[in-house]
Amino acid sequence: MDFGTETIRAAAERIHGRVRRTPLLSSPMLDEATGATVLVKAEALQLTGSFKIRGALNVLLSLTDAERDAGVLAFSTGNHGQAVAASARMTGSRATIVMPQDAPRIKVDGVRWWGGEVVFYDPAAQDREVVGRDLVAERGLTLVHPYDDVRTMAGQGTAGLEILDQLREGGHAPDAIVLPCSGGGLASGVLEAVRSEVDAAPFVVEREGYPKMARSLATGRVQQVPAVPAFLDAIGSPTVGESTLAALSRHPVTALELSDDQARLAMREAFRTLKLVLEPGGSAALAAVLARRDRFAGKTVVVLASGGNVDASVYSEVLADATPG
Amino acid sequence: MDFGTETIRAAAERIHGRVRRTPLLSSPMLDEATGATVLVKAEALQLTGSFKIRGALNVLLSLTDAERDAGVLAFSTGNHGQAVAASARMTGSRATIVMPQDAPRIKVDGVRWWGGEVVFYDPAAQDREVVGRDLVAERGLTLVHPYDDVRTMAGQGTAGLEILDQLREGGHAPDAIVLPCSGGGLASGVLEAVRSEVDAAPFVVEREGYPKMARSLATGRVQQVPAVPAFLDAIGSPTVGESTLAALSRHPVTALELSDDQARLAMREAFRTLKLVLEPGGSAALAAVLARRDRFAGKTVVVLASGGNVDASVYSEVLADATPG
Repeated sequence: MDFGTETIRAAAERIHGRVRRTPLLSSPMLDEATGATVLVKAEALQLTGSFKIRGALNVLLSLTDAERDAGVLAFSTGNHGQAVAASARMTGSRATIVMPQDAPRIKVDGVRWWGGEVVFYDPAAQDREVVGRDLVAERGLTLVHPYDDVRTMAGQGTAGLEILDQLREGGHAPDAIVLPCSGGGLASGVLEAVRSEVDAAPFVVEREGYPKMARSLATGRVQQVPAVPAFLDAIGSPTVGESTLAALSRHPVTALELSDDQARLAMREAFRTLKLVLEPGGSAALAAVLARRDRFAGKTVVVLASGGNVDASVYSEVLADATPG
Repeated sequence: MDFGTETIRAAAERIHGRVRRTPLLSSPMLDEATGATVLVKAEALQLTGSFKIRGALNVLLSLTDAERDAGVLAFSTGNHGQAVAASARMTGSRATIVMPQDAPRIKVDGVRWWGGEVVFYDPAAQDREVVGRDLVAERGLTLVHPYDDVRTMAGQGTAGLEILDQLREGGHAPDAIVLPCSGGGLASGVLEAVRSEVDAAPFVVEREGYPKMARSLATGRVQQVPAVPAFLDAIGSPTVGESTLAALSRHPVTALELSDDQARLAMREAFRTLKLVLEPGGSAALAAVLARRDRFAGKTVVVLASGGNVDASVYSEVLADATPG
């Protein structure tokens, strides 16, 4: 696997000016709530409402004209799907997005808004990879993998290059960096970018009871878990990638688990202290810092808030629910 | 009145490094919803959740040591109050904040979090200026006026200097700039800063039926309206300032009015398209652009989103309510 800082820098040049430089937010109230100094990379403010546009656009811009003309396909609960639909639109391609029937409405609407064609599947009965690969064969499309592709990983890593700049600008020296983990594309890209210059302990966060990355890292082989409950759809991948596992294995990664209630608490804290809308999975890293004072109190911690695509009805319920995490 | 770009630049130097440079956000979905190219200066992401810290901190840093030692007072529904409490804390002073009994809970909590002492009054029976001035006399405090003070206006104007930088960085040439208007401190400061370099038509937005600034500008004298309904508390001042009126009179300002429902729609659009939490008054400028396609369609418009301090219960109700604006 040819994957390193140079790959990520090349991706950054490729997508420059087409994606946002998202801010690194902080709040004294959030610092009080966590006991730490928390720096939040607000990828919810990214174009399409999540970091996924970074990787998807890097892939689309790496295709041949013939591949772009034939069209692309992605399977996704929605953030990668919106990103691929947007990237296809921005590069003159067409996107087919395979989504579970129970995907958040705002994500389905988002894919369609960007001109993507939505193909639903039944997550209880069908494997999204099989549905996707069948369509790829049938329609002559190019699959844009949500994580297990060096071009995707490098694109996601561009968020890490921005974090490096922002740490320098703010004069911060973080002790830890905490990233949500679904298939591992974001974590592998950002850690590769950041850890070349910053000696911060790396953490990834998975759904409680579904530690596919923890097990994969422990065994050195890609592991599978059952389908993750839908609430945390953004970190819902039931497995990781060969490439992402190989890349993450280079770092001394600690995997943490979070519960739905911990994510809810983090969403409320982001609302109260940052004025930032986070979706459940997008709050995973912040949730871990709120829940694990034993790990993070007294530390300077970079947290990546990966997305904000949440239905208004779900968000209202979360705000109304004051159950402590 | 000695008020101009130099005053604002001096304020920017004074508060530099203590307040945030907030991002200028945009969204293709928001552009579609408005028919315009909208650039949103996200002051909800400012320290204390609104732009008010800019002016309050500039005042606190302009006081004598003796004045700071004796303490300061502000009357406010909460954004100015939080800003004065935070500024007092940051400069070693103490703040007393006079607030209406029905102020949003999140704002009362915010004032107290920053160490401010809250004194409630009954907005139906008492005049906040009288309550405030009595306490000032009694306790030997310095009043930090929410708008009618050149130091406050200059501090708010620092948001305008950032907008200028951000317009240059993005290569944008706006046709219009739209600002919420309560007492006029923000509008007078930002217009003074921006219009020295950018020829954008200036708009201010007030609550429908309570056009104190429109009437003041039309008559050339400070006008009063009855107390504005509490939902839009952030633009709730029933009057304007002598200084703010004088400063705004230098510009060809058009005053627009908005309804509560238009503010609700704008809050939902900010949630959906920007992932930004806005309070009702904080959404006023965006609401005007959404509501007035006749004015803004096809234009590049800078909108200042002034604050995000809204109670979770109110926010949930707004998200649940799909009444079109």
